[in-house]
Amino acid sequence: MREFKTLRGMRDFLPRDMIKRERILRIIRKIFESYGFEPLETPAIEYWEVLSRKCGEEVKKQIFKFKDKGGRDVGLRFDLTVPFARVVAQNPYLPKPFKRYCISRVWRYERPQTGRYREFWQADADIAGSPLPDADAEVIAVGVDALKALGLDNIEVRLNNRKILEGMAVKAGVPGDKILDAFRSIDKLDKIGLEGVLEELSSKGIPKEVSEKLLEFISISGENMEVLERVRSLLRGSKVGEEGINELISILDILEAYDARKYVKIDLSIVRGLDYYTGPIFEYVLKESPSGKQFRLAIAGGGRYDNLIELYGGPHVPATGVSLGVERIMEVLEGSISEEETLTKVYVVPAKEEVRLETIKIAQKLRRENIPTDVDLMRRKLDKSLEYADKKGIPYVIIVGPRDLKEGFIVLRDMKTRLQEKIEVPKVIEVIKEKL
Amino acid sequence: MREFKTLRGMRDFLPRDMIKRERILRIIRKIFESYGFEPLETPAIEYWEVLSRKCGEEVKKQIFKFKDKGGRDVGLRFDLTVPFARVVAQNPYLPKPFKRYCISRVWRYERPQTGRYREFWQADADIAGSPLPDADAEVIAVGVDALKALGLDNIEVRLNNRKILEGMAVKAGVPGDKILDAFRSIDKLDKIGLEGVLEELSSKGIPKEVSEKLLEFISISGENMEVLERVRSLLRGSKVGEEGINELISILDILEAYDARKYVKIDLSIVRGLDYYTGPIFEYVLKESPSGKQFRLAIAGGGRYDNLIELYGGPHVPATGVSLGVERIMEVLEGSISEEETLTKVYVVPAKEEVRLETIKIAQKLRRENIPTDVDLMRRKLDKSLEYADKKGIPYVIIVGPRDLKEGFIVLRDMKTRLQEKIEVPKVIEVIKEKL
Repeated sequence: MREFKTLRGMRDFLPRDMIKRERILRIIRKIFESYGFEPLETPAIEYWEVLSRKCGEEVKKQIFKFKDKGGRDVGLRFDLTVPFARVVAQNPYLPKPFKRYCISRVWRYERPQTGRYREFWQADADIAGSPLPDADAEVIAVGVDALKALGLDNIEVRLNNRKILEGMAVKAGVPGDKILDAFRSIDKLDKIGLEGVLEELSSKGIPKEVSEKLLEFISISGENMEVLERVRSLLRGSKVGEEGINELISILDILEAYDARKYVKIDLSIVRGLDYYTGPIFEYVLKESPSGKQFRLAIAGGGRYDNLIELYGGPHVPATGVSLGVERIMEVLEGSISEEETLTKVYVVPAKEEVRLETIKIAQKLRRENIPTDVDLMRRKLDKSLEYADKKGIPYVIIVGPRDLKEGFIVLRDMKTRLQEKIEVPKVIEVIKEKL
Repeated sequence: MREFKTLRGMRDFLPRDMIKRERILRIIRKIFESYGFEPLETPAIEYWEVLSRKCGEEVKKQIFKFKDKGGRDVGLRFDLTVPFARVVAQNPYLPKPFKRYCISRVWRYERPQTGRYREFWQADADIAGSPLPDADAEVIAVGVDALKALGLDNIEVRLNNRKILEGMAVKAGVPGDKILDAFRSIDKLDKIGLEGVLEELSSKGIPKEVSEKLLEFISISGENMEVLERVRSLLRGSKVGEEGINELISILDILEAYDARKYVKIDLSIVRGLDYYTGPIFEYVLKESPSGKQFRLAIAGGGRYDNLIELYGGPHVPATGVSLGVERIMEVLEGSISEEETLTKVYVVPAKEEVRLETIKIAQKLRRENIPTDVDLMRRKLDKSLEYADKKGIPYVIIVGPRDLKEGFIVLRDMKTRLQEKIEVPKVIEVIKEKL
């Protein structure tokens, strides 16, 4: 017999996982909405031209690309930013700033590994229309608040600016057409180490002394304002570099009002993998995960992309945004959120066949009160039904007996304590609501 | 300049549409959960072998099929039933009955037309493990309740049984290997008319007198029990036919307890397009849509598929389910649900630049109380900010002035009445909560 299964790197979410995921996504959604972000959805499939426009070579190779039946080159979206940029370009009448959130799935053909899948969810909040650090601060803050609402307050936001990186690259002597290349290599610092990056830069034709100077720049560390002032003196005369420094200082000042400045650490080695970033960029890392498990990868990130929207035929619309990695968040929360097999609270079963239809009537009453209620659909004997409720983890069972019912009662069984009590039928809802 | 847009038959959902959709999907989800269905998700992409197993030739042609980078034949799911069947087959340890719901997107390459898209959402509730009419009645009832909760109580559930259709086809003289073919043609009755169906049946090699007999069968109409008794006498001796009739009678009896029998009409012409159905099948049609717009197509449907799960390598697990067509429901609800451009309730703006950071602090307080709140991210003048709030439809604006603030006040402006009132800062949340 053939084996039918999910594709490599893709997963089914059974109820146990889904209940947990939904709870987490609901928290993120609430925070996004509290900040005035509005929901927006786009198709899973986009024209290849849209997807490949500004994603960078690495990601381009990972796109699920195919031809549709009309012979068009299309692909599955690899992030939620590119579709957002296309929407803003296509709908120029939208009032600005346009703040949207989207919690949805994306696809990348990567080598599957722990916490990395070929189908995964992102939770994004973006602002189109504001060129100001006010907008960058807002998206950084909404990310911080979402993670805090999930119990992840042990975070650090590593903040940098593509403009500073560009200024440094020019100062170091990287040729203008090699700057993006250099960024891509530096982005791998965590993965391939200093030696690896040096090698890659050299293979890209960047002289060793230039690379070393660049790596020296990005390893400058210290207290936020110290680092920025040191970089300022090093980049003196670089207009783009100065701009980048001033933007970060403004962002830090504004984040004070959000009560989020304390989470931010200037980190000049942050690059972000995608080609479309143009200004402030940031990553959220856990200092320690709640389960004690160390998790060095960023659980969220984002940045400013001022030129992407006009690439899709729109006017010039500056934009900035944050993206939470749902799978990584799920992983670091593993064990720290309660696990449930079922949402169902009550199971209504007949003690005798003759009152089976009565169990449905009682269940319907509970359902109308939004109490998740199940009935026996297998015509099982009572003991088997109790076994099923037990296995599923349903906390309460209502047992309907013909004689009880005639007297106007049912029996409510608490599956944890195994205690049973007789309850008047009209009081059932009230009693159960109290217990839940 | 190239034009970047969505693919034909696919749509962006801007906030206005998404807010409406989310509201509708939340109602459906609530009803599904109240009936004890648990959430489950599966990947958008499945192996071609899984998708093509039992969908029928028509649908097979509509699947977005492609090769992934590993050279595997894969495709986008065209419904939520097939992935559900695969999951149940792959996880035989799941306690039975296993009740799951899934509200998610599916893809079919069809000719786009009003209410029909190439990417669309379905809202499904299925029960695996029960062979009994109790389960069929439960899924029919949850569909009725979901539609009623959406305000669609003017519905009719057209109920039939594949077993009755099979009995009739055999009685009429349709050769065994042509029965599924005959069903597929009858399924088009609404689209191509009686003559069209006769022609198609003839082209499939079914003699005219056989076809006519079959069409005579399926046009039997009248009061539910009358129809079933008439069919019983016509099918006397057909074991499968008798079984089908008895199942429908049981379902009707059980639906009485759900208070849903009154919505059900036996309709022998209902076939359902997919090959995997084996027993009771049903469609929900609107007698009249709330907007007065006539809408003849089914807005939901479902049925029993007892052999699908074992086709995916699982044990024999009988199953039944209902699927709500989200796009069609959206369409019939058009105009009857309130339209909102925004979820945001409050816009906090400074009267003078010097108190800008103070507006953020006030906004943060409201956000922590789950009041969707926006702040000015454009550093606009007050009148421009009020214009923006107006355009977006944000109902309240908080204006923060330096002098007011020093005295411990802010100004709350009702954007509809244009009335402004001074409020003490510590009372802002209380006052706004009262108004919302």
